[in-house]
Amino acid sequence: MSETNRIWRLRKRPVGDISDDVLSLEEETIPEPAEGECLFQLNYLSLDPTNRIWMSDMDQYMPPVAIDDPMRGVVCGTVIKSRSPAYNEGDIVSGIGIWADYQIGSPETVNLLGDIGSVPVIDAFGTLAVIGPAAYFGLLDITDPQADETVVVSAAAGAVGSIVGQIAKIKGCRVVGIAGTDEKCQWITKELGFDVAINYKTENMPEALKRACPDGIDVYFDNVGGDILDACLKHMNLNGRISTCGLISQYNAIEEVSGPKNYSMILMQRLKVQGFIIGDYVDRYPEAIAAVSKWMAEGKIKVRQDVVDGLENALETVKKLYTGENKGKLMIRVKDV
Amino acid sequence: MSETNRIWRLRKRPVGDISDDVLSLEEETIPEPAEGECLFQLNYLSLDPTNRIWMSDMDQYMPPVAIDDPMRGVVCGTVIKSRSPAYNEGDIVSGIGIWADYQIGSPETVNLLGDIGSVPVIDAFGTLAVIGPAAYFGLLDITDPQADETVVVSAAAGAVGSIVGQIAKIKGCRVVGIAGTDEKCQWITKELGFDVAINYKTENMPEALKRACPDGIDVYFDNVGGDILDACLKHMNLNGRISTCGLISQYNAIEEVSGPKNYSMILMQRLKVQGFIIGDYVDRYPEAIAAVSKWMAEGKIKVRQDVVDGLENALETVKKLYTGENKGKLMIRVKDV
Repeated sequence: MSETNRIWRLRKRPVGDISDDVLSLEEETIPEPAEGECLFQLNYLSLDPTNRIWMSDMDQYMPPVAIDDPMRGVVCGTVIKSRSPAYNEGDIVSGIGIWADYQIGSPETVNLLGDIGSVPVIDAFGTLAVIGPAAYFGLLDITDPQADETVVVSAAAGAVGSIVGQIAKIKGCRVVGIAGTDEKCQWITKELGFDVAINYKTENMPEALKRACPDGIDVYFDNVGGDILDACLKHMNLNGRISTCGLISQYNAIEEVSGPKNYSMILMQRLKVQGFIIGDYVDRYPEAIAAVSKWMAEGKIKVRQDVVDGLENALETVKKLYTGENKGKLMIRVKDV
Repeated sequence: MSETNRIWRLRKRPVGDISDDVLSLEEETIPEPAEGECLFQLNYLSLDPTNRIWMSDMDQYMPPVAIDDPMRGVVCGTVIKSRSPAYNEGDIVSGIGIWADYQIGSPETVNLLGDIGSVPVIDAFGTLAVIGPAAYFGLLDITDPQADETVVVSAAAGAVGSIVGQIAKIKGCRVVGIAGTDEKCQWITKELGFDVAINYKTENMPEALKRACPDGIDVYFDNVGGDILDACLKHMNLNGRISTCGLISQYNAIEEVSGPKNYSMILMQRLKVQGFIIGDYVDRYPEAIAAVSKWMAEGKIKVRQDVVDGLENALETVKKLYTGENKGKLMIRVKDV
């Protein structure tokens, strides 16, 4: 165990793209757990689109990170000191923590990763801890897709989107994925079995969407908001469902964001639009984890991870989410386990 | 029975406000019912915000009225000739018809008004045929309001909104109504029992809404869209529900309408936004009619109607809906029954 601790602290709220002065990496002392807490060492730090929300003071689903506080993140680590019956030394925990080598956990923030069988910790954390349940509940609970329905997914080569599309295929749907590079489009059609992919950066979205969805859209799984949401709204079928998982297109916006111009389709086509945050489903995680890990074992769900080594690279790496540079689940690896 | 028939025909699509050259009133011959149809004489013509949608070629939930076709409307009439076992001469029917003294009905378009007990036909048609079921299902089915929750209703002195607020009071909710004149605000609080009224034309909406809803908004029943929707989105509570019944603020828009700026609240607060058209619930009308007529008989639901005599006044009168001039359910009376 090292003598010093590295912690990323939020120094200012980002305006537009995340800049280098938004966070600073500090060397500090390692904290001591109080009664009921543990100290754990970071193994993996998940980088997620929602990080940009937490940095900002926009309306959000948790309090934003306060200026000068440690940056919040989804973490996986190994318990090295425990003052709680919930943890033993050597336990692997995951949950909400901070961007730091050493940090305090309590049952309100981190839990045992649990029985992951022969799955490597990095895969269990990367896919099963958050992303898999988000795809599972966000698609199945909110939109209840039926066989032969058309499901459109944005950020389709992203961590959540790629799993959403594969679950929709398992359910017998026609699946159209929207992504931002030809490489991503090929990956989701050739490797993951999506029926059609649309490159929103090179194709005319409204036309491509119309061609890809000759029978209209029954379900749209929204990771991005903005123009892509608007284009999808235009083609929604009667009683269509939209699951709102993310609105990444607007997180870095400087000007006020205007809403979808085709909002009136909610009325005309009697749509249901529903937002969710994966934390709401925490009590039902075992159901999702069991299903997704079974599908992974059967080869019906494939994942890819974009792993960058070194906590010192976290700030530079998180930016990739907003440029679409990452390929699959983006993570920082501090120390394999 | 007169020898000639008066029919309003759509001559052009309105641009902005409805102008006098959008419809023309023609004298034509009275049609003959074919096998399976009836001929009925118009008693009452309901004027509804959706009329403006049908005149336009915007995306909508039914085909728009074709240029030179008779204007579509919700009608109540008396059968004067029947070639269908579904109707006898003298039956009172209601449903979707046209703006004309005499017209053809079939079981796909009009049905018997049914057993209305001692309720006058004009009240049964005005309140129970469409408006009551819209308020009933749009509030209860879509938002499932619970006692002590805060329910906000826009166009709260309108035909649907005034009933929505009263049903919410029956369910034990705190009810805030938004209307456009002090007279309307007084009517909904003093006569109908709403807890608070906001005059959106004279008050600062965001501030007034914040004051009126100190515990946030659990349910918003949206009749208007636009800035009022945006202001409500801003104050929605976790797991709030929005029932989209109408978007009257944008029906007369000439420029492209921008969507709600606070759309991201759907994600942050995990809202459910759902649109409906009352025709979707036609199979369940008896449930709503039974409930609403019982509440009316008990004095728990009060209604007011804004009745204008003469089919020739239909065009001038329908404009009142978009200026907010009407007080309660707007109807044209051609011939009492």
